Amino acid sequence: MDISGKWFLETVFPDLAVMLKVRKVLYSGHTAYQAVEILESEVFGRSLVLDGKTQSTERDEHIYHEALVHPAMLLHPGPRTIFIGGGGEGGTLREVLAHEGVERVVMLDLDPEVVELCRRYLPQHHQGSFDDPRVELLHQDAREYLAASSETFDVMIMDLVDPIEGGTAYLLYTDEFYRIVKARMSPDSILVTQSGPAGLLSHQECFTTVFNTLTGVFNHTAPTTVHVPAFQTMWGMTLASDSPFPTLSDDQIDGLIAQRIDKTLRFYDSETHRNMFALPKYLRESIRSESRVNRDADPVFMI
Amino acid sequence: MDISGKWFLETVFPDLAVMLKVRKVLYSGHTAYQAVEILESEVFGRSLVLDGKTQSTERDEHIYHEALVHPAMLLHPGPRTIFIGGGGEGGTLREVLAHEGVERVVMLDLDPEVVELCRRYLPQHHQGSFDDPRVELLHQDAREYLAASSETFDVMIMDLVDPIEGGTAYLLYTDEFYRIVKARMSPDSILVTQSGPAGLLSHQECFTTVFNTLTGVFNHTAPTTVHVPAFQTMWGMTLASDSPFPTLSDDQIDGLIAQRIDKTLRFYDSETHRNMFALPKYLRESIRSESRVNRDADPVFMI
Amino acid sequence: MDISGKWFLETVFPDLAVMLKVRKVLYSGHTAYQAVEILESEVFGRSLVLDGKTQSTERDEHIYHEALVHPAMLLHPGPRTIFIGGGGEGGTLREVLAHEGVERVVMLDLDPEVVELCRRYLPQHHQGSFDDPRVELLHQDAREYLAASSETFDVMIMDLVDPIEGGTAYLLYTDEFYRIVKARMSPDSILVTQSGPAGLLSHQECFTTVFNTLTGVFNHTAPTTVHVPAFQTMWGMTLASDSPFPTLSDDQIDGLIAQRIDKTLRFYDSETHRNMFALPKYLRESIRSESRVNRDADPVFMI
Amino acid sequence: MDISGKWFLETVFPDLAVMLKVRKVLYSGHTAYQAVEILESEVFGRSLVLDGKTQSTERDEHIYHEALVHPAMLLHPGPRTIFIGGGGEGGTLREVLAHEGVERVVMLDLDPEVVELCRRYLPQHHQGSFDDPRVELLHQDAREYLAASSETFDVMIMDLVDPIEGGTAYLLYTDEFYRIVKARMSPDSILVTQSGPAGLLSHQECFTTVFNTLTGVFNHTAPTTVHVPAFQTMWGMTLASDSPFPTLSDDQIDGLIAQRIDKTLRFYDSETHRNMFALPKYLRESIRSESRVNRDADPVFMI
Repeated sequence: MDISGKWFLETVFPDLAVMLKVRKVLYSGHTAYQAVEILESEVFGRSLVLDGKTQSTERDEHIYHEALVHPAMLLHPGPRTIFIGGGGEGGTLREVLAHEGVERVVMLDLDPEVVELCRRYLPQHHQGSFDDPRVELLHQDAREYLAASSETFDVMIMDLVDPIEGGTAYLLYTDEFYRIVKARMSPDSILVTQSGPAGLLSHQECFTTVFNTLTGVFNHTAPTTVHVPAFQTMWGMTLASDSPFPTLSDDQIDGLIAQRIDKTLRFYDSETHRNMFALPKYLRESIRSESRVNRDADPVFMI
Repeated sequence: MDISGKWFLETVFPDLAVMLKVRKVLYSGHTAYQAVEILESEVFGRSLVLDGKTQSTERDEHIYHEALVHPAMLLHPGPRTIFIGGGGEGGTLREVLAHEGVERVVMLDLDPEVVELCRRYLPQHHQGSFDDPRVELLHQDAREYLAASSETFDVMIMDLVDPIEGGTAYLLYTDEFYRIVKARMSPDSILVTQSGPAGLLSHQECFTTVFNTLTGVFNHTAPTTVHVPAFQTMWGMTLASDSPFPTLSDDQIDGLIAQRIDKTLRFYDSETHRNMFALPKYLRESIRSESRVNRDADPVFMI
Repeated sequence: MDISGKWFLETVFPDLAVMLKVRKVLYSGHTAYQAVEILESEVFGRSLVLDGKTQSTERDEHIYHEALVHPAMLLHPGPRTIFIGGGGEGGTLREVLAHEGVERVVMLDLDPEVVELCRRYLPQHHQGSFDDPRVELLHQDAREYLAASSETFDVMIMDLVDPIEGGTAYLLYTDEFYRIVKARMSPDSILVTQSGPAGLLSHQECFTTVFNTLTGVFNHTAPTTVHVPAFQTMWGMTLASDSPFPTLSDDQIDGLIAQRIDKTLRFYDSETHRNMFALPKYLRESIRSESRVNRDADPVFMI
Repeated sequence: MDISGKWFLETVFPDLAVMLKVRKVLYSGHTAYQAVEILESEVFGRSLVLDGKTQSTERDEHIYHEALVHPAMLLHPGPRTIFIGGGGEGGTLREVLAHEGVERVVMLDLDPEVVELCRRYLPQHHQGSFDDPRVELLHQDAREYLAASSETFDVMIMDLVDPIEGGTAYLLYTDEFYRIVKARMSPDSILVTQSGPAGLLSHQECFTTVFNTLTGVFNHTAPTTVHVPAFQTMWGMTLASDSPFPTLSDDQIDGLIAQRIDKTLRFYDSETHRNMFALPKYLRESIRSESRVNRDADPVFMI
C-alpha cells in the first residue's frame, strides 16, 4: 500500500488512531448541526462520518443495523408501530421495514441535510426505504417531539450519534430522556438504544452508564454486544422494557425470523442472538459495579 | 494527544492501519528467527511485537490466553499432560499451570531469545511460570519434535505466530502437521490452535482454512471467537478432537472452573463460554462454504 | 492539532513522508491524463496535487513562480515572445504577463481538465491571466507542437511535472527534447526548466542529470535553487542559452525589475538573485561530477 | 515502503508533520533536563531528538555545523578563544577545532547525560573532539557561567535548543542574555547564534525577533540562512559584533579556509558564503518590520 495519498484518521483512544486510505471523498462539508463526510475506501466501501466519527460503512453496516433492530423486534409479541430516533443513513429503517407486520414508522433525524446526503450517496444503506408509505420522516429534536406526542410505539429504536460533549445527542441518553421515552411506550413495548463502545478498554466510556441509567427507569434491561469492524471494537446495544423479555429457543427465534421478515438476514439468527446476549465475565462485572447515572445536569460523555 | 513522537503502525488491511503512540521502546532487535520489539503505550501497557505484528499486550493478554487455554482444558475430562507450541510470553503457560491437575507441560518455543526477552520485560505475562517444576521448556521446531516424540498429551495448545509467507510458523497450520499432532493425542485428547483474525472482513484470511483443514483430520472440531482489543478485531481459535466435545451446562462449567483452577479468572466463565462458541451467521456460512485445505505444498498465507 | 480527520500524505523519501491536515477537499478525480486533487489546508491554503505530488500551493506559489520566470526574463535583453510548457495553474503565466514588453505567450498544457479546474478553484494562482489577449492556450503535447512549429521564442519556460516513470512529462527532460526546443530559440533566447528537488539528499534524483543533459545541448547553463515550503526542500531550476548570461549588478537587476515589471514582486530582487545563483559547495561538486545524460531511450526518473 | 513499523512524527506546523520510519531506537529516555532519543533511519542515519525536536542527523549535520561555525570564525581576524553554548553532539566543537589557530574552547552544555549519550552513540558527530586538550567542557547553565566569568572570547557560538516555552534555553535568546554575552566579548569579537526556522511560513516564529533583539545590543548584525534537510526547511543563524564585518572577496574567503582550516569542508566555501548571506526579499522585509524584542520578562517562544 503506497503511503502517499489521502487518509482518514480517527482516534479510538487518546493514543491510538486508525488510518484509513481514502479512495474518494464523495462529500465533505458542514450542515447546520455537524460536519459530514462521505468517504470511499477499498476495505469499507462508502463510509458516513459525522463530526469526525465513523457512523457506518457500506461493507459492514448490516451487522450494526441487524443487531440493533431485530432482537428488539423479535422479543416483542407483534410490533406494528415503530419509532426511530436518528438513523439518517436509512439502514435501521430498512431493517424495520423488512418486518411485514410493521404498519407505521415515525423516524426523527434532526438533520435534514445528512438524510439528504445519505439518500444521494448511500443507496446501499437505505435501499429506497425512505419512500416506503409506512414511513413518516421528520427533522426535529427527538426529545421535544416525544415530550409533545401522545402516541405510543411498540418498539422504539435509538440509533443516535454517541454522547459526546458539545455533540447533538448527549441529552438523548439521560434518565430524564428515558422517562420521556417510557411515557410513549405500552407495558410490553421495547426500547433499544445504541450504547457506545463495549470493548475491554472502552466499555466504561458510556456503555455501563447507559445500562445503569436504563435500569433506574425500566423494570427489565438487557445488554448486548456485537463486533462492528468499522468501529474497530465491540459495540454495545441495550434493550429495556417494563415487561420481562421472553426466553426464546433457537427454533422459536429462527421461526419468528422466517415468519415475520421478508428477506434473508446476513448477520442475525438464533445462534447470533445467543452470542449477542452472552457477555464476557469482565463486562458483566463492570455493568454490575457501575454506579453513575446519566442525568441532564450531569451527563457522562464518551471520551 | 500530541502527534509528535514515536508511533507504531500496524496494517490490519492493506488500506487500514492502526497507529499506537509509543511511550517507551523497551527492546528492539533481531533474533536468529525474527524481529522483536517490546513497546510500552498508555492504552496497552507493554506489547510484544514479532515481525511487525502485535502478539499480545499487558492490558488485554488475559482475554486471549484465557480464551485459548480454558475451553480446551475444561472440555477434557481431566488433563494432566499438556503440550504448548509457541507461547513465548508465558501467558498460555501461566493459564495452563493454574489447573491444579496438570502434572507435566512440554513447551516448545523455537526462539530462545524471544523467551528470554519476555522473561525479562513481560513479568506480568509469565508471572514466574517458567520456573514451575512441572514445565519442560525446549527451543526447537515443534514439528520436528512432535514427529520424533512418542509421548501423548491430553491437551495440545498451538499458540503460534500467524501463518505468514516467509514467517516461522506457516507449516504448523497444515494437514500434514495436524496428522503429526494427532499421532501424539489419545482418542479423548483435545487440540486447540489460534486461528487468526475472525472479523467480517478478515476471517477468510486463514480462520476458515484452518477450520477446514482440521475437519479433514479430526472427527470433531469447534470454532470459537473472541474480541482481542490489541488485534483491533475478533480472533479465532479452533478446537479439534476425535471424541465429541461434551455439552456442559453453565453450572457444570462454573463448577469445573472452581474445582480445577486455583485462581480467579477475569474473562472466562460459563456465559463467556457460550459467547465464544456461538458464532454469527455469516461466519458459520463462510466456514461451511470453505473448500481450501492448508497443505505443506500449498499453504494458505495470512495477508 | 487533533489527529482525527483527513490528512494528505506525500512521500519525500521512501522512508520519509509529510502529513498535511486537509481542511477541505475541493476536488478529487481523474482526468484523461492524471489524478487531480485540489486540497485546502490551514498552512498552505489551496494546493494542487497531480498524481499524488503537490505541484503548488496558494501560500507559497509566488516563490516558485517568481523564481522560475524572472531570472530568465531579466537575463534576456528584451523578451517579447514566450513559450510556456505546462504550468496549468496559471502562476507562471501570471508572472510572464507582468512583463510589459511581452507581446505573445504560447502556453501548452497537455491536460485541459487540469487547466479548467485551476481556473475554477485556484483564482489566486492565475488571477485572470488566461483571459489576457496576448495568450494562446493550447492543449497538446509540447514536444509534438514544438517539433512541428517554425516559430522562435525569446524565453521558453518548462513548468512541468517531475520526470516520473509512467508520468506525462519524462520525455520533456531529455537530450532529444532539448534539441527540439533549441531549434525554436534564437542565439540569445533563454530556456529555463524546473529541474526537481535540489536538497542535499535529493539533488541527484534528477537535478544534476537535467543540468548535465542541458550542458550537452547549449553553450551556457546556469543552475539555481530556491526553497519552496510546500516541497519541504530546496528546488532546482536550470537556465540554458547559446549566448552567455550577462553579469548584472544589483542596481541593474533592480532597475530592470522596476522598468519591465508592472507589479511589486514579493520574492525576487537583486539579492534574491544572488542567493539563487550561488550554490552550496556540495551541489556544485555533484553537478560537476554528474555523468548521466537523459536520453529518450534511457531517461533518468525521479524517485 | 511498508507502512508497518516504528515511525517518528514531528510537527513542523500545527497541521503539518513529518513521518520518519525508524530503523532502530538506539536510546530513548529522560535526563534531568529533557527527553532524549537517538534514532536511526535510512534517510538520515542517526538522529538526536531532544524533547521531540530533531536536533541533528548523521547525514546532514555537517551543513548545520559548518554554517554555524565557519562564517563567524572567518570574519574574525584570528580567533584563538572560543565559547560554545550548547552543542552537546560535538559537531560545533569539531568544526571549531578544525581551525588551527584555536587555543582554547570553553563549551557549556547544561546536560551531562546528553553529552555522554552523544559521545557513545554519535561518533560521526564528535569524531573524538571532546578529547582535544584545548577543550574545557562544563555542565552548567551558560548564562550563570558567563555572568560570573571575567574571561573574554574571540568567537562565541550559541548552538542551543530552540526557545520553546518550558524548554531549557529560552532565556538564552533575550536582550538581557545578550548583554551578558557582550560583556565577555572584545570590540572585535563575534557572536553567532542559531536562530530557529527561516522559511517563508516559519521565520516569524523566532528568527526575526532574535535578529531584532541582537540589533538592540550590538552595532552590527548579519542574518544568514541555510537549508537543513533534517529540519525540512530553511534555518536561520545570526551574527553580531560591535565591529563591522569585513567584506571579503571570494578569493579571500577561500584563502582563509585553506590557511586556517586543516580539513576539507563539504558545505562551506566562498560561494556558499554568498548564498548564506543573501536573503530573499520577503525575509529582509520581515526582518526590517519586526518590532518585538525578546526580554526575560516577555520572551518570544517558538511555536
